[in-house]
Amino acid sequence: MSLPDLLIDPVVRLALAEDLGRAGDVTAAACIPADARLTADFAARQAGVAAGLAVVRLAVRAMDPDAVVEERIKDGEAFEAGQTLVRVEADARALLAAERTALNLLGRLCGVATLTRAYVEAVAGTSARIADTRKTTPGLRALEKHAVAMGGGSNHRFGLDDAVLIKDNHVAVCGGAAEAVRRARTSVGHLMKVEVEVDGLDQLDAVLALAVGPDVVMLDNFGLDDLREAVRRNAGRVVLEASGGVNLKTVRAIAETGVDVISVGALTHSAPSLDIGLDAA
Amino acid sequence: MSLPDLLIDPVVRLALAEDLGRAGDVTAAACIPADARLTADFAARQAGVAAGLAVVRLAVRAMDPDAVVEERIKDGEAFEAGQTLVRVEADARALLAAERTALNLLGRLCGVATLTRAYVEAVAGTSARIADTRKTTPGLRALEKHAVAMGGGSNHRFGLDDAVLIKDNHVAVCGGAAEAVRRARTSVGHLMKVEVEVDGLDQLDAVLALAVGPDVVMLDNFGLDDLREAVRRNAGRVVLEASGGVNLKTVRAIAETGVDVISVGALTHSAPSLDIGLDAA
Amino acid sequence: MSLPDLLIDPVVRLALAEDLGRAGDVTAAACIPADARLTADFAARQAGVAAGLAVVRLAVRAMDPDAVVEERIKDGEAFEAGQTLVRVEADARALLAAERTALNLLGRLCGVATLTRAYVEAVAGTSARIADTRKTTPGLRALEKHAVAMGGGSNHRFGLDDAVLIKDNHVAVCGGAAEAVRRARTSVGHLMKVEVEVDGLDQLDAVLALAVGPDVVMLDNFGLDDLREAVRRNAGRVVLEASGGVNLKTVRAIAETGVDVISVGALTHSAPSLDIGLDAA
Amino acid sequence: MSLPDLLIDPVVRLALAEDLGRAGDVTAAACIPADARLTADFAARQAGVAAGLAVVRLAVRAMDPDAVVEERIKDGEAFEAGQTLVRVEADARALLAAERTALNLLGRLCGVATLTRAYVEAVAGTSARIADTRKTTPGLRALEKHAVAMGGGSNHRFGLDDAVLIKDNHVAVCGGAAEAVRRARTSVGHLMKVEVEVDGLDQLDAVLALAVGPDVVMLDNFGLDDLREAVRRNAGRVVLEASGGVNLKTVRAIAETGVDVISVGALTHSAPSLDIGLDAA
Amino acid sequence: MSLPDLLIDPVVRLALAEDLGRAGDVTAAACIPADARLTADFAARQAGVAAGLAVVRLAVRAMDPDAVVEERIKDGEAFEAGQTLVRVEADARALLAAERTALNLLGRLCGVATLTRAYVEAVAGTSARIADTRKTTPGLRALEKHAVAMGGGSNHRFGLDDAVLIKDNHVAVCGGAAEAVRRARTSVGHLMKVEVEVDGLDQLDAVLALAVGPDVVMLDNFGLDDLREAVRRNAGRVVLEASGGVNLKTVRAIAETGVDVISVGALTHSAPSLDIGLDAA
Amino acid sequence: MSLPDLLIDPVVRLALAEDLGRAGDVTAAACIPADARLTADFAARQAGVAAGLAVVRLAVRAMDPDAVVEERIKDGEAFEAGQTLVRVEADARALLAAERTALNLLGRLCGVATLTRAYVEAVAGTSARIADTRKTTPGLRALEKHAVAMGGGSNHRFGLDDAVLIKDNHVAVCGGAAEAVRRARTSVGHLMKVEVEVDGLDQLDAVLALAVGPDVVMLDNFGLDDLREAVRRNAGRVVLEASGGVNLKTVRAIAETGVDVISVGALTHSAPSLDIGLDAA
Repeated sequence: MSLPDLLIDPVVRLALAEDLGRAGDVTAAACIPADARLTADFAARQAGVAAGLAVVRLAVRAMDPDAVVEERIKDGEAFEAGQTLVRVEADARALLAAERTALNLLGRLCGVATLTRAYVEAVAGTSARIADTRKTTPGLRALEKHAVAMGGGSNHRFGLDDAVLIKDNHVAVCGGAAEAVRRARTSVGHLMKVEVEVDGLDQLDAVLALAVGPDVVMLDNFGLDDLREAVRRNAGRVVLEASGGVNLKTVRAIAETGVDVISVGALTHSAPSLDIGLDAA
Repeated sequence: MSLPDLLIDPVVRLALAEDLGRAGDVTAAACIPADARLTADFAARQAGVAAGLAVVRLAVRAMDPDAVVEERIKDGEAFEAGQTLVRVEADARALLAAERTALNLLGRLCGVATLTRAYVEAVAGTSARIADTRKTTPGLRALEKHAVAMGGGSNHRFGLDDAVLIKDNHVAVCGGAAEAVRRARTSVGHLMKVEVEVDGLDQLDAVLALAVGPDVVMLDNFGLDDLREAVRRNAGRVVLEASGGVNLKTVRAIAETGVDVISVGALTHSAPSLDIGLDAA
Repeated sequence: MSLPDLLIDPVVRLALAEDLGRAGDVTAAACIPADARLTADFAARQAGVAAGLAVVRLAVRAMDPDAVVEERIKDGEAFEAGQTLVRVEADARALLAAERTALNLLGRLCGVATLTRAYVEAVAGTSARIADTRKTTPGLRALEKHAVAMGGGSNHRFGLDDAVLIKDNHVAVCGGAAEAVRRARTSVGHLMKVEVEVDGLDQLDAVLALAVGPDVVMLDNFGLDDLREAVRRNAGRVVLEASGGVNLKTVRAIAETGVDVISVGALTHSAPSLDIGLDAA
Repeated sequence: MSLPDLLIDPVVRLALAEDLGRAGDVTAAACIPADARLTADFAARQAGVAAGLAVVRLAVRAMDPDAVVEERIKDGEAFEAGQTLVRVEADARALLAAERTALNLLGRLCGVATLTRAYVEAVAGTSARIADTRKTTPGLRALEKHAVAMGGGSNHRFGLDDAVLIKDNHVAVCGGAAEAVRRARTSVGHLMKVEVEVDGLDQLDAVLALAVGPDVVMLDNFGLDDLREAVRRNAGRVVLEASGGVNLKTVRAIAETGVDVISVGALTHSAPSLDIGLDAA
Repeated sequence: MSLPDLLIDPVVRLALAEDLGRAGDVTAAACIPADARLTADFAARQAGVAAGLAVVRLAVRAMDPDAVVEERIKDGEAFEAGQTLVRVEADARALLAAERTALNLLGRLCGVATLTRAYVEAVAGTSARIADTRKTTPGLRALEKHAVAMGGGSNHRFGLDDAVLIKDNHVAVCGGAAEAVRRARTSVGHLMKVEVEVDGLDQLDAVLALAVGPDVVMLDNFGLDDLREAVRRNAGRVVLEASGGVNLKTVRAIAETGVDVISVGALTHSAPSLDIGLDAA
Repeated sequence: MSLPDLLIDPVVRLALAEDLGRAGDVTAAACIPADARLTADFAARQAGVAAGLAVVRLAVRAMDPDAVVEERIKDGEAFEAGQTLVRVEADARALLAAERTALNLLGRLCGVATLTRAYVEAVAGTSARIADTRKTTPGLRALEKHAVAMGGGSNHRFGLDDAVLIKDNHVAVCGGAAEAVRRARTSVGHLMKVEVEVDGLDQLDAVLALAVGPDVVMLDNFGLDDLREAVRRNAGRVVLEASGGVNLKTVRAIAETGVDVISVGALTHSAPSLDIGLDAA
């Protein structure tokens, strides 16, 4: 999925405004001549996967509309430590003022893409897809889900409104997963999918037995044996999603049980920022 | 520093709007009766330090103004795994719709506070303070810096406009650190501090020799021996801040060199989210 | 689907601000004493279906937080001409200032619900559902789709981002519907559906023959015979949606062909506003 | 009245954001190559009057700043079915993503202009002007009133703050129309007009007898005989506005009574959207 | 004209946000206990006229929703030096954080009202009204025009869109005042007034001779003799507004020429702020 | 300090929107042909100091992106009566619509700079700096503080969050200035300064005696003798700021006491707007 600038620009401008505060970059205003130009490289300090390069262009252009921005890599491509991702030639004050905002966003997004890529490669050769969750940074969901996609991952729901996901609390209030699925099916339109979370094989059997069942079943915190058994019992009828207790050490074994999707909250809530810096060229 | 609701509420509402999208929580609308109530606990799955508890109250109340929210711990206090942080009694649909937004923010902020606490404890007994940086999440700077404070850390600049920080790029354009400091001193008001980054002992000597010098000198990527020598040469004249290459293994030794402040970008850019969940009470 | 106030209130406040302008209600300020109270009824001048009653409460409370608002009917229920929908007791200036905003929104939403109900009743007894489109009023999509649901209709996509809908222009650029569906399938996550528009039976055959096909096929401007034949050839494999040339005279016959969904742009783009007034009680 | 882009652009961007949601146009991202260009025509499917052509330019440019937009007709001009209103050459993804937003706004505005033109032509040769009301779509008042003007109609108040309009509820609280007009006259500035609504000839006599009377009198739901009598009694002293029960069948007879203005809520609250489509050129 | 809170609150919140910045009131957070309460008076340091008292309530309540705010005077009333205008009992941190915002707005608005009152009293006994202009503080127009009204002044246009005011530049481009008035008359609706500026008696004669003339004529920078002659020639036909060169020394003589309105830019663009302070009670 | 456009543009656009209202410039639309161009000068009617020239460019370009704007003077430079500050060549309607917004902002900012320059010149030859306060116009703080700097003044705090300023109310609640300073010192980071207000020489002695004292002491409403004595006792240890009772007649004598900073609220809260006009070239 490719994000239009219209969705990224407000995030960039909000971040710039937060950093500029009321008085702007007082250091640049004091120390840098008003007409100085600067050519500099956004360069990786460690290897990773590119995502969100547009934030550099948008941040720099927000400060200097005439900045020349040359992207030397594309979102989704891997890079080495030391590699230049984007070269910028701009008004020096503008570039230095935009630097931190651009780096904060780019480092985070490349961090997400890079961690996602690690999970995707860990399950290579299996039929499992690595998916994100809604455990994203407030305000950055679209950008972080884009970064997941650039890392080779797959996007789960974007929000509370684009698919039904029935979890334990819903089941408890509804009086059972079957009833909850039934209510959801009569409520939603023909372009919305329904997923239900089950806590064990018995619950799985119940929802698989429904006349009009869910599109997806989430197997929450299943052990490997139960995952295998779930795949067997499902026999391809619905999409099976494993969640809970997934990390880079466990993900391969989970994938080999035959589940279709493995969702990983850490992709977005705990990916370390990738180290990128700005070097005068 | 204690943040007023007025600064937190817009972040919470932006995050809720992002999650609710155009149609709101379709699962709750389909499966939960309109008049159902729910009492549930925001409970820690792992030990940590509390920060940002107000986001729970604000997120839930944004959805149900009559929700009863009982905070069982205060920002800055430590908690154990399994401990309830906040109990909420509210309209069931409202609480379930607010759940993920509240957890995303709370998990992130407690994660920052918890990591900060670890650094602070690592330097206990020395005179060094652990400080954050501007490497924060776009849109969450005030909240994340609050979390650092709750973890026992100290806040560096809040933005580009509340202190001068002269870095290598400024020095290069200005023709030397001494000239940059001089320009800054004549430019800023009497309530703004001036910090300058130096790359070696020679640069340190130059700025210490200035008639009107900086308030703070940042020792960037100094080895332990050079840090000790810098402390000796400074003899208490300016505040010395060590930065670069700091992690939980190295921070103690750095603190023991006698520097005043150690700034750590990872506090905010790479703190893993703390695992917190919502359990029906 | 039940909309939270959080999604409705910004629309109401935007509309109030538009009407109040810079100086507020100059007539009320000039003619109504500052302490006057008014009890009045939002009453239907014609029969219809209720939708969006919350806008009355939110508009009046935005002007007078202490207003007493009594809803005498619920969204989705039918009413007769002359029936009171909502009774309000409030500061007189506040109520008169909010009147037009409340009526504009309520009249529009009841108009949509009422027209939808007419279509739904026209196909009663068939298996076809009446669905809306994205031909909604800018800024009011969530509210208008809610009104469609209250009229008994079903919601199509809420926007460009919650389902794939491949139309003729996409097919043309992609080099065929089959290729477009294939690309969509590899691109989207496991909770997003894929629909493709076909212009004739041949195209239908092509997409039905795909190994990994769409979830929904839109039969665009098919005649009744072709619709029946499409239903026969599909044999229940995918959801079939009829669109184009639908009005209250034709919709029954279309439904009787056996299609699953009939989408009607007029539900939202051309529903006349329902006549509602405010009468002093 | 000619609207500046500054007032239209926020509406267009709000509508685009509503449609793009969190993830943008997933169909175009999946099916259309990133570098594809598209030339296409916004073409009328039925005859009408143009209004709001600027929305096409602003919507397309918001997605692709380099789009080439050629307007082939001007606001206020009539067009035939099949006629191209605007030709656009742009990035294909951008154009397809902007299509629905542009069409929704343009169809609505041309619908308003076209309906207005029908009323204006119905009263041709009389001295009556056709005027709109405040029964507009929330958020679109400026645009819809512009469309009325483009259809040849005249604009009534733009909001609660730019003229006094004393209606029955105000009169009731004030203790009579005369007292209400008196209060209004002492309250408002020298550039604000005062209108009062009367329900019968007796009330008309009372306000015409005032020493300092209103600028305009609204004759609410008067029959044709009473309208004629009102015109006679007024003898040109104030502007007379007829309102209530106006439709395309009745408007000519109303105009022939000699009233100056006929206000028609349906111009904006119930004008059907004009059918316009986007055709690849 | 009485302003609704809905129009004032956004201004107050913008001002608070500007003052709180990213970290809020660091002084109060450091020095004031979290549970301290404070009772304090907004007290006048000099005599004046009250306007905008609502800003105190809204600013304090934005920080502490439970604050008790007691207004001891009403907008439009005069007060003496030393008099308490508003007493507040609130959370101490909240009240101290809101203090400056409340004082900045209140001081400005009382300053405008007080200066206006001086002009109004200077022309007492004549038939001239003192009117404001559009020379207001950006963002505060509604509030400042309210303050003018509270001082006893009259409001001119609120913006570019609620009346026509033809000035010299328009006349020049149009080819004469008469042509400009004619164009305006055919363009605007029946609730909008038309004013034209004239630079001398000849121009006045020209516009008075028009078959369909303006509602108001602005006599720009006329001397006293010319003003008197203008009043004589007009003979009550249109409203005459004097502007230019008005100050507290000249205004009485201008009023005695018989003009209807005297507009004074200084009311809003140069009124000194009234000195008000916050005293612990 | 030089403000980036990113901080000025939102203020300009807010002001334009306020003036354009819902319908835009009705006079220009009625009287000025759509294709007319206008060349005109923003010219000073009185001598002064330039500040905020960027608002002219931003206001005009917001209405006409292709406007040619030629600044003939720079911020901080003095000008004579009659001098052209900015020449603009633009669409005539756009320029006339932007005129008042540009003049309102420019007149205010030049007024602040000009008044500041008068204070600065009054203390020429002493060591005192003239500083502003937080008594600024809501929403315009950054711009007005920039104007102070352009006038040669120095900026005090930008808001509640960028320095500690302990005033009498804080001292009262804390139980003494010494305790308040101590709390502040342990609370704030190493880049934030601490100022404390004292009411007499005894209080000054107390804070000067602190082991870890403030950076700045504000001498509030001290007489000249006490100011001199304060300077003597301080002996250069902290920065001394005089405040209260400062005007153009008293400021020189205050400066000659030897204080470092003199803060003047009137610079921003009571500077008269400078008279600037727009003349067709």
